[in-house]
Amino acid sequence: MLTVAMCMALVACLQAQELQGHVSVILLGATGDLAKKYLWQGLFQLYLDEVGKGCSFSFHGAALTSTKQGQEFITKVLESLSCPEDMVPRRCAELRGQFQQLSQYRRLRTNEDYMALSKDIEAQLEHKGLREAGRVFYFSVPPFAYADIARSINSSCRPGPGAWLRVVLEKPFGHDHLSAQQLATELGSFFQEEEMYRVDHYLGKQAVAQILPFRDQNRKALDGLWNRHHVERVEIIMKETVDAGGRTSFYEEYGVIRDVLQNHLTEVLTLVAMELPYNVSSSEAVLQHKLQAFRALRGLQKGSAVLGQYQAYGEQVRREQQKPDSFHSLTPTFAGILVHVDNLRWEGVPFFLMSGKAMDERVGYVRILFRNQAYCAQNEKRWVADQSQCLPRQIVFYIGHGELGSPAVLVSRNLFRPSLPSESWKEVEGRPGLHLFGRPLSDYYAYSPVREQDAYSVLMSHIFHGRKDSFITTENLLASWVFWTPLLDSLAHEVPRLYPGGAESGHLLDFEFRGTQLRFSRQQLEQLVPGPGSAPKPSDFQVLRAKYRESPLISAWPEELIAKLADDIEATAVRAVRRFGEFHLALSGGSSPVPLLQQLATRHYGFPWAHTHLWLVDERCVPLRDPESNFQGLQAHLLQHVRVPHYNVHPMPVHLHQRLCAEEDRGAQMYASEISALVTNSSFDLVLLGMGTDGHTASLFPQSPAGLEGTQPVVLTRSPSKPHQRMSLSLPLINRARKVAVLVMGRLKREITMLVSRVGHEPKKWPISGVLPSSGQLVWYMDYEAFLG
Amino acid sequence: MLTVAMCMALVACLQAQELQGHVSVILLGATGDLAKKYLWQGLFQLYLDEVGKGCSFSFHGAALTSTKQGQEFITKVLESLSCPEDMVPRRCAELRGQFQQLSQYRRLRTNEDYMALSKDIEAQLEHKGLREAGRVFYFSVPPFAYADIARSINSSCRPGPGAWLRVVLEKPFGHDHLSAQQLATELGSFFQEEEMYRVDHYLGKQAVAQILPFRDQNRKALDGLWNRHHVERVEIIMKETVDAGGRTSFYEEYGVIRDVLQNHLTEVLTLVAMELPYNVSSSEAVLQHKLQAFRALRGLQKGSAVLGQYQAYGEQVRREQQKPDSFHSLTPTFAGILVHVDNLRWEGVPFFLMSGKAMDERVGYVRILFRNQAYCAQNEKRWVADQSQCLPRQIVFYIGHGELGSPAVLVSRNLFRPSLPSESWKEVEGRPGLHLFGRPLSDYYAYSPVREQDAYSVLMSHIFHGRKDSFITTENLLASWVFWTPLLDSLAHEVPRLYPGGAESGHLLDFEFRGTQLRFSRQQLEQLVPGPGSAPKPSDFQVLRAKYRESPLISAWPEELIAKLADDIEATAVRAVRRFGEFHLALSGGSSPVPLLQQLATRHYGFPWAHTHLWLVDERCVPLRDPESNFQGLQAHLLQHVRVPHYNVHPMPVHLHQRLCAEEDRGAQMYASEISALVTNSSFDLVLLGMGTDGHTASLFPQSPAGLEGTQPVVLTRSPSKPHQRMSLSLPLINRARKVAVLVMGRLKREITMLVSRVGHEPKKWPISGVLPSSGQLVWYMDYEAFLG
Repeated sequence: MLTVAMCMALVACLQAQELQGHVSVILLGATGDLAKKYLWQGLFQLYLDEVGKGCSFSFHGAALTSTKQGQEFITKVLESLSCPEDMVPRRCAELRGQFQQLSQYRRLRTNEDYMALSKDIEAQLEHKGLREAGRVFYFSVPPFAYADIARSINSSCRPGPGAWLRVVLEKPFGHDHLSAQQLATELGSFFQEEEMYRVDHYLGKQAVAQILPFRDQNRKALDGLWNRHHVERVEIIMKETVDAGGRTSFYEEYGVIRDVLQNHLTEVLTLVAMELPYNVSSSEAVLQHKLQAFRALRGLQKGSAVLGQYQAYGEQVRREQQKPDSFHSLTPTFAGILVHVDNLRWEGVPFFLMSGKAMDERVGYVRILFRNQAYCAQNEKRWVADQSQCLPRQIVFYIGHGELGSPAVLVSRNLFRPSLPSESWKEVEGRPGLHLFGRPLSDYYAYSPVREQDAYSVLMSHIFHGRKDSFITTENLLASWVFWTPLLDSLAHEVPRLYPGGAESGHLLDFEFRGTQLRFSRQQLEQLVPGPGSAPKPSDFQVLRAKYRESPLISAWPEELIAKLADDIEATAVRAVRRFGEFHLALSGGSSPVPLLQQLATRHYGFPWAHTHLWLVDERCVPLRDPESNFQGLQAHLLQHVRVPHYNVHPMPVHLHQRLCAEEDRGAQMYASEISALVTNSSFDLVLLGMGTDGHTASLFPQSPAGLEGTQPVVLTRSPSKPHQRMSLSLPLINRARKVAVLVMGRLKREITMLVSRVGHEPKKWPISGVLPSSGQLVWYMDYEAFLG
Repeated sequence: MLTVAMCMALVACLQAQELQGHVSVILLGATGDLAKKYLWQGLFQLYLDEVGKGCSFSFHGAALTSTKQGQEFITKVLESLSCPEDMVPRRCAELRGQFQQLSQYRRLRTNEDYMALSKDIEAQLEHKGLREAGRVFYFSVPPFAYADIARSINSSCRPGPGAWLRVVLEKPFGHDHLSAQQLATELGSFFQEEEMYRVDHYLGKQAVAQILPFRDQNRKALDGLWNRHHVERVEIIMKETVDAGGRTSFYEEYGVIRDVLQNHLTEVLTLVAMELPYNVSSSEAVLQHKLQAFRALRGLQKGSAVLGQYQAYGEQVRREQQKPDSFHSLTPTFAGILVHVDNLRWEGVPFFLMSGKAMDERVGYVRILFRNQAYCAQNEKRWVADQSQCLPRQIVFYIGHGELGSPAVLVSRNLFRPSLPSESWKEVEGRPGLHLFGRPLSDYYAYSPVREQDAYSVLMSHIFHGRKDSFITTENLLASWVFWTPLLDSLAHEVPRLYPGGAESGHLLDFEFRGTQLRFSRQQLEQLVPGPGSAPKPSDFQVLRAKYRESPLISAWPEELIAKLADDIEATAVRAVRRFGEFHLALSGGSSPVPLLQQLATRHYGFPWAHTHLWLVDERCVPLRDPESNFQGLQAHLLQHVRVPHYNVHPMPVHLHQRLCAEEDRGAQMYASEISALVTNSSFDLVLLGMGTDGHTASLFPQSPAGLEGTQPVVLTRSPSKPHQRMSLSLPLINRARKVAVLVMGRLKREITMLVSRVGHEPKKWPISGVLPSSGQLVWYMDYEAFLG
C-alpha cells in the first residue's frame, strides 16, 4: 500500500528528477551541543526512514573549527548513534556504516568556503550521474551568525535550477516584536518564505503533533464539544525540575515567557484553539487557520500574568555573571498566564498557560476539561467511571515525562472512545495505583506512541517532506510577538514572587482568576526582590480626593482612575435600575473613553446591560461604520462585548437619506424627540464628558452659535478640526442630568485644567465652564498628569 | 440573660395581658396519623419550652369521632410522649403529667360544637381569673373539610377582643394555580392574612432553618462568593427510598412535583436565591425578599424537566385502585428540574431540583458548588485540603438522613471557617472513611445541631412566637403556583422513564442540560410506558429530498430539518461573504423560526455574523420591544447571543414619532430606501419565509390590496388576526432574492401544504403561490408532519 507519507517522500525527490534525486544536508554548528544531542541522531533517523525510497543523500557537518578537530568530533558522534529498538541490529549496523560514509566534516567560515562546498556538491552529482533534488541548511548556530551565513548561502551555495533550498532556523527568533521583525526582514532579503523552516521543537513532540489529527479523526464526537458551551478550561503546562544554573547568561536575557510561553505553549494553544481546517493535511490551510487563531487572542495586560523566581536564581546570576551582591534580577523563572480567545467558539473559556523551572516535577501537557452539566441521581459510591457524566470529563495530550513517563493521549471513558491511527498509537497498559488529573489511569482511554520518537527526528522528516505546517512562518512568528510583546513590556519592572523550588513551594505558586485578572491564590506578605530604580509605582499612591471648581475631584494614575470611574458608573447603573428599572447613559466619543469602555466591557460582570440605554453625547458627521465615527468606537470597544438590547442603543442620526447632517433631515430634532420619549424628564442618569485643550466639551466649541444656551436639546455644530460637522447634546440638556462625570487625562490637558480651575461661568469662552447640572451632581475624574502635570 | 426568643415568648402572652395570658390550642384532626406521629409531640415540646414563662395553656384535641373513642385515643398518645434526652426523667414525668391534665379530647362537628368550645374556654378563663392571649387552631384535616371548619371558627370561636387567632394549615394548598387561588380566596373570607399559618414542614428542618442565619452570620465571607461569578451550580435534592405503595390514591392525584418540588424544594430554593435582607429576623423583610426571588425565576418549559416512574408503581396503582390491566399511569415518582434565576446575581447558574421515590438512599440536601478558578502549580498529590483552591469548594446544608445521619452544615476548608451559633450548633466528630460530595468529611468544617429537633416541634414554637417567615403566605403560595403550573400543564401527557428503583436504577436517572434543555444522560432505547398514540419517532426517518411545486423540497423530523436549514444558511452566508464581503439575510417572524434562531445562535461558530446584515421580512405594528414584535424574537433568540454589528441590524421602522405604522410617517418607504441603499440591486442573498394555514406568507394575506404586485418594495398590510397592522416586504421584492427558503412545520399546515401543491400561480388567493424568485433559487423545508400529515 502506498501511504501518503511515502508519496510525499517520493515527490520530494521526484521534484528534481524523474526517478532519482540527491539531497545534501548541511548541518551548521555540527559540533555544538544540540547537534551532538539531537541533530545527528535526527539525520540518521531520516536516513533510516528514507533510504531506498528514491533519494540519495550526503551529510555535511559544518562548523568554524578546524577540519581535523571537526572530523574527530563527528566520527565520535557518529559512532554513538543509536538504532530504533524495532530494527534488527545487523541491519542497523550496516546502515549506520553507510550513514557514516555519507557524512563528513567541513569547515565553513568564509564565502569562499560556501562556494567551494557548492562546487564539490555539483562535482559529486556529476561524478555519480545524479540530479540534484535539494539542499537543506540546518542553522544550529547563535543568531548573531545568521546574517553572514544566510548571505553566503544565498550568494554562493544555492542548489541548481529545479532543486529546492530549505534553511532550518532555531530559536530565539528575536526578543520582541521589533527585533523579530528586523531579523525576519534580514532573512527575507536572502530567502523566500517557502525556503525557511523555523523550528519549534514542540511541534515535533508526538503528543503535540497529534492534536490536529486527533481533532480531525474524532470530528464527529468533538464537533459538539469543542467550544465554550462545553469546555470549562484549557491548561497548557510545561514544568521543569531543572533550574537555570549554568545558563543564566542566556536566561537573564530571556526569562520563562520568551523561553517557553511565547513559542512552545503558544504553538500548542493555537493548535487547540484554531478552527479545524476541512483538510488538516493542507499545510496552507493549517497555517492560515493558525493565523486566524492568533488574531482572535484577546490582548494581554499586566493583570493577565503572575510571575515567580526560584530563590537560588539571584545567587546563581551573581555568581555566573560576576555581579555585585547588590544586584537583584527581576527575570521570571515561573509564569502563569490567563489567555482568552475572543471568538464565538471560545469566548469566556480560560486558557491557563504555565511554565516554570525548579518545579516539583517535570511534565508537559495540554488538558481540556469539560464542564459538568449533569446531575447524577445515585449516591456517588455507585458512579461507574465510563458511564457517570458527573465524574471529570477531559482530554489530555500528555507531552511527556511526568508520572506516565511517555507521551500519551488520554480521553475520559465517560466522553467517547477516541479514534487514533493504530499503526502509530497503541493503548497504554494498566498501571494500578497511577492517578492522573484526579482520576485513576483506568478511567481513561489512554494511548501512547507505538514507537517513541525524538522531536528532532520527527522534524527532520517534516523538513524533508516539506511539511511547512510543522514550522513557524514569518507571519505566525510576528503574530505571536504582537501578542506577547505588550505583556512583556508591561512586566519589565514587575517583581516576581520568590519560591523555594521543588515540592517545598507548596501552594505558593497556585494562582487563580477574578474576572480577567490573574493573581496568586495565597495573598500573604511576600518576600520581595527590591526593584530597580526608585520611581514610585502606581500602587504607592492612593486615589486622591479633592475639589475642583467646587465639585468633587477624583485623581489617580490612569489605570486606577479608569477602574474607579468604571466602578462608579456601575454603582450608578445598579442604583438606577433598582429604582427606575432602567439606566440612561450618555457617552462621549474620542480616545479617552476607550480604556473605560474596555474596562466596562471586560471586567464588569454585574453591569445591568440588559436595562441600560446607551446614548451619544456627540457624533461626527460621518457614516456610523466609519472608523472616525464615535459610534464605531462604541461598537468596537463596548457593544460587541456586552449584551445591550438592540433597541436600547441610540446612535445619533447623522446619516439620513444618504446625507450627512443635512439641516433639512432634522436629525437633531429626531434625536431630541427620541430622548424626550424615552428618558424621563430628559434627565440622563449619567452623562460622561471630556474636556478639550481649548475648553470644549461634547461637540460644543468656544463661541459656538448653538448649544451653549437656548432651548434646542440637540444641535448641529462645527468643530475647528476635521471632520468639521458635528451633532451634539446641548449644554442645557447636559445640565438636566442627574450626574455628570468629566474625564480628563494626559499631560496635554495640564494647561487647560489649570486655566479652567480659575475661570467662572463663561461657556462662550470655555464651554466646559458651563457644565453644572442644575439639580444633579458633577464629578471630575483627572489623572495625575492632567491634574498635577 | 434574656434571649430574643424569650422576649418574644413573653410578648406572645403580654400582648393580651400585663403579665398573665392564656393560650388555647385546638388540634383539629387530633386522632389522625400526623397528629399521632408528630403534632402531639410538638405540642408537648411547646409546653416544655414555654411553661413558667408567663403563659398558661390548654390543649384541645378535636375530631369527628365520639368523645369516648377520642379520649381513649388521646390518652394513649399522651402516654407515649417522649422527653428530650437532656432532661431529667423525673422532671419530665412531672411535666408530662401536667400536660396530660391540660389536654382533653373534644368532638367538633357542628357550628354549635364550636360555639360551645368557645364558651367553655371563656368560662374556664373567668373561673381561673385569666385573660386570654390567643387561640391556635391547627388544621390536621383533609382540605375538603377546611371551609366548614373555617366558617365555624370565624363565626363562633374567635377569641375575645385583644387576643390573637392563629389558624395553622397543612398542605396540599391546591393542585394548581387556579385551585390554590380559589382555596386562598375562600380562606380569606374567614381569616385575615396575618391569622393564617400555612405549614411547609421543610421550613422547620434545622438545616433549612439555618440557611438565612448562616448567610447572615457569614455575610463577609459570602458577600463576594454568593453570585454567578463564583457559584457553579446549586443542587436541591430530596431522595426517598420508600415508594408510594399504600398511598397511590393520594399520589396519583399529585405526583412528585406537587408533592415535593412545588413546596419543599421551592422554599429551599428561595432561601438560597433571595437577596439577603439587611435584617433577617424581620419576618416582613424575609417574606418580601422571598417574593422577589419568585419573580426572578425564569419560566419553566417542558424541556426544563425529566420525569421518571419506578417500575412497580403501575401495578401498585392498578391493585390499590382496582384499575384494569390496560391502565397505565403517567404520574411521575421522580423529577429532575433545571431552574434559572434571571437576575444579576444568578443569571446562568443552574439550579438542579430533584426528588424521587424508590431511590438508592434517603437523603436531603442543598449543595452550593463554587467554580474552580484556580490553577494549582504542584502535582495533585501535594494538594493540601484546606489550602488548595483546586479541590472542590462547596457549602452544603445537609437536611438529614443519608450517610451522615443527621442535619449538618458543611463548608469546605479551602473556603472559610464559618460562624454558627455555638449554643445550638457543634462541630461534627470525625468519621474516618466517610466521603461526602467527593471529599472526605475531614475536608469540611462540619457542624450539626446540639439538640436534634423535629420539624413540627420547631414550627409549633414559631407559630407560638408569630414567626411568620417560617410559613407560606398567600402571596408566596400563589407565586410558587404561578411558577409551577405551566410546567405541570405541559407535562400532563408526558411519558415518564421507567426505573427499577433502588441501586438497580444505576445511571438510568442521571440527567444533564444542554442550553436550557434538560434530558436524561443515557439516550439509548428506553423501555417506555406505552404512551398515548403510536406516532413514529424521529430517529425512524432520514432526511428526505423531493420536489414541491417544481422546486427542491427537503423534509425531515423537526430537529433534523432545523439543523439542515441552519447548515444551509451558514453555507450560503459563507459563500456570500467570500464573494461579496457581506451577506444580506431577511428573516420572517413568528414561532417557527425560533428553533432555527436558537440553532444558529448556539451551534454555528463559523457563521460570519460580523459581515451579515439582518433584515425583517415582516413586522407587526407594535413597539420593537413588545413581546409580540418579530424583532423582539430576533433580539431574544439570536441577537443577544451573537455579534452582529449594531448598524447591520435593520428592524422595520413600524414605530416612528411614537406612532405605529402611520401612513404619513412613510416607514415602508424608509425601509425600502434603506434596502436599496445597502443591498446590491435590492436582491437579498437569502429570504426566509413561512406559510400560514390560509396560504399567506410574509405579512401578505389573501386578497391583500398591496404587496402582491406593483412596484412598492415594502408595504403596509392588514392581517386577519391580531395585531392587524403589519409591514411586509412585497412579493416582487422577495422574488428579486438570490435564494428563498420556505419553512413549513407542524400538522396544522398539512392541509394547506396539500392544497398549495396543486394550485398554479394565484397569489391573490394564496400569496405563497406567488413566491418564485425570478433569477434565484427556491427551496422548501417541511417537516414530516406538514408534508406527510
